[in-house]
Amino acid sequence: MTGQEFSFYRVQTRQQALARLESFDRLPAEEADLDQAFGRVLAEDLTAAEDLPPYARSTVDGYAVRARETFGAGESLPALFELDGEVVMGRPAEARVRPGRAVRIWTGGMLPPGADAVVMLEYSRVLDGTGLELTKAVAPGGNTIEAGEDLAKGDPALAAGTRLRPQELGLLAALGLTRVKVVRRPRVAVISTGNELVPAGARPGPGQIRDVNTHTLMAQIRQAGGEPLALGLVPDDRERLRELIERGLEAADTVLVSGGSSVGAADWTLRTFLSFPGAELLVHGVSISPGKPLILVKAGQKSLWGLPGHVASAMISFELFLKPFLIRRLQGRTEPDPPPVRAELSRNLASAQGREDWVRVRLEGGPGRFRAVPVLGPSGLISTLVRADGLVRIDLESEGLEAGETVEVHLI
Amino acid sequence: MTGQEFSFYRVQTRQQALARLESFDRLPAEEADLDQAFGRVLAEDLTAAEDLPPYARSTVDGYAVRARETFGAGESLPALFELDGEVVMGRPAEARVRPGRAVRIWTGGMLPPGADAVVMLEYSRVLDGTGLELTKAVAPGGNTIEAGEDLAKGDPALAAGTRLRPQELGLLAALGLTRVKVVRRPRVAVISTGNELVPAGARPGPGQIRDVNTHTLMAQIRQAGGEPLALGLVPDDRERLRELIERGLEAADTVLVSGGSSVGAADWTLRTFLSFPGAELLVHGVSISPGKPLILVKAGQKSLWGLPGHVASAMISFELFLKPFLIRRLQGRTEPDPPPVRAELSRNLASAQGREDWVRVRLEGGPGRFRAVPVLGPSGLISTLVRADGLVRIDLESEGLEAGETVEVHLI
Repeated sequence: MTGQEFSFYRVQTRQQALARLESFDRLPAEEADLDQAFGRVLAEDLTAAEDLPPYARSTVDGYAVRARETFGAGESLPALFELDGEVVMGRPAEARVRPGRAVRIWTGGMLPPGADAVVMLEYSRVLDGTGLELTKAVAPGGNTIEAGEDLAKGDPALAAGTRLRPQELGLLAALGLTRVKVVRRPRVAVISTGNELVPAGARPGPGQIRDVNTHTLMAQIRQAGGEPLALGLVPDDRERLRELIERGLEAADTVLVSGGSSVGAADWTLRTFLSFPGAELLVHGVSISPGKPLILVKAGQKSLWGLPGHVASAMISFELFLKPFLIRRLQGRTEPDPPPVRAELSRNLASAQGREDWVRVRLEGGPGRFRAVPVLGPSGLISTLVRADGLVRIDLESEGLEAGETVEVHLI
Repeated sequence: MTGQEFSFYRVQTRQQALARLESFDRLPAEEADLDQAFGRVLAEDLTAAEDLPPYARSTVDGYAVRARETFGAGESLPALFELDGEVVMGRPAEARVRPGRAVRIWTGGMLPPGADAVVMLEYSRVLDGTGLELTKAVAPGGNTIEAGEDLAKGDPALAAGTRLRPQELGLLAALGLTRVKVVRRPRVAVISTGNELVPAGARPGPGQIRDVNTHTLMAQIRQAGGEPLALGLVPDDRERLRELIERGLEAADTVLVSGGSSVGAADWTLRTFLSFPGAELLVHGVSISPGKPLILVKAGQKSLWGLPGHVASAMISFELFLKPFLIRRLQGRTEPDPPPVRAELSRNLASAQGREDWVRVRLEGGPGRFRAVPVLGPSGLISTLVRADGLVRIDLESEGLEAGETVEVHLI
């Protein structure tokens, strides 16, 4: 291939580019401790192997009774019972509650056989000896949780693709599953290119600039549940770039090369990507702004991404493509994204037809009356992103948005 | 004090209870590596010690010129220049651009002295020798970023209390700050009480149940930026409970004791909390459901929390009190919470006046047409939380909400 072949983009829409991600498989499963699995994605469908709870329990402190024996009871006409002992917490409630009898029970206590409801302590009066007055009727099942009410044996518990929130981990604990199969975290190698770059820790000389993208991208990778691996900076040295990408392909599932935002540099990144055996070009240019010069090459089940060098372009490209790739494709998460925030646009925004714009905005006001205030500025500025709360999309077919329109803000 | 003194609640509203948190100080700062600081809270105000970028840069590939020399240029009337070399990336652009001259420059290249704008490559034609035609006019500053345009020396960069997102880490990298002062993560010890509990890894016998709260709370602590420390289970043994709380106070900033949802057990938790030197009762009962029996005791700058035993009550108490405590109070984060999702309630919900209800709901539909569908069930069920996407508040003064009302859903 000659340089000429790469010098124009085979531009796709964002949706077309996202569709190309479907040729990648989910990463394999690995075992994790329950308490280390927060935020991970479940790799298998789980079924309840037992009833949850395993037995009927009281949800209050009170007296276990046969519900029908309380019918009609009230403050002025208490139902009379004989107190017949107590359910000891953590012990089986073995003795059957006989007619006319009530058994003292605590919150979470096992409902004794014979009883089908619990009357709360506050509706009781203990008389002399073993007499007990209950001043409120209770329906069968009242103030109890049935065996299997939370989950019955054989019920589907959690599906593969579920993100494990605190409550899902609680359900796993309740089922006794202290080890859980989760999808391995995607490993993502990060390379920054450009003769002008120095590491963040160095002092740039004239014409030099500190590498920012390595750090924003590493944080974005973590945010998407991945493990970043910074491979460092490469000057415009093709051999060295190829070596670093090779290291990335060995150590990681995905390699990101940012920089080379000039047409020539992007060509060389692409050329280097395609020099790997079996490399297949999936994306070369997307009709979005910022972020147009995106490159995606598939090499087996590994992927090589070329991101623009401008910090905002690189971040927004990650947000739009890498984030769904790492979360939905490689980790197989099925849950929908958190909903965007609806807001009223504060000013007119022009856009070219045939290009999908992603505009940085700041949110002002509060729920139900949010205003989205565009934060304008070149995509080489990091401060615009720091001032922004989210992104607003201007459709491919749209010539712009008008002040006062309702827009959806994707938080970043 | 006698047990009697504790047997009724000194119930506060949620807002009153939250106001009691203000007597706790932010945790101290510690240094973290830039690439380990994602999601942490900045502990100091930062000012730009230098201009960002340090010199004017081109944002495109093209030709650096004096803008006024392009005025009037167009496709049919190109402006003529003499090509005078190239700005090498990563090198200072030292030679002054003289009148009538243009210098080749790349994206990110240092704007040479004399030039004040860049004409994009696509509007240029190189003639034989050193002649150059530019077919588009550019305004002064066009296609460039000025020195200090991102941030000028002395500008405030980031304020203490900022949560470090990828873009804030990018700004720190740009400023050369590879070590950053962040607020230490709150350490939170977790204890579950109750004779009926067995560890999640054990098989419960009759009358026993697996400990769930340790695991949901540990994940919630992580979610709130804290470091959980599980101290395990205590049966109803006051001496053992006191020992464990003592260990928690030594190792952690905050101790959570869940369980003891019965009045008697909660009394004993409170009594044990108050037995520590300097212990001060801040909260004993909140007018919310679920979660009413919340206890907060202050011991110096450490805090002891008693949470209800029911899994949903414990989780929701954490969400409403511990989460803001760990995030805003101990970590000092100033940023507002992510906005709630507005949705249409699917059915009527009754509520008692004088009690703030937090109802679990599932979201259906999409942005702008979300429906909040209540997930009803006793607060002892974990599956209701697994099915829920968020919580809807029913105000203290309200007798309920009606189907079709717009509600705010706090995602959980």
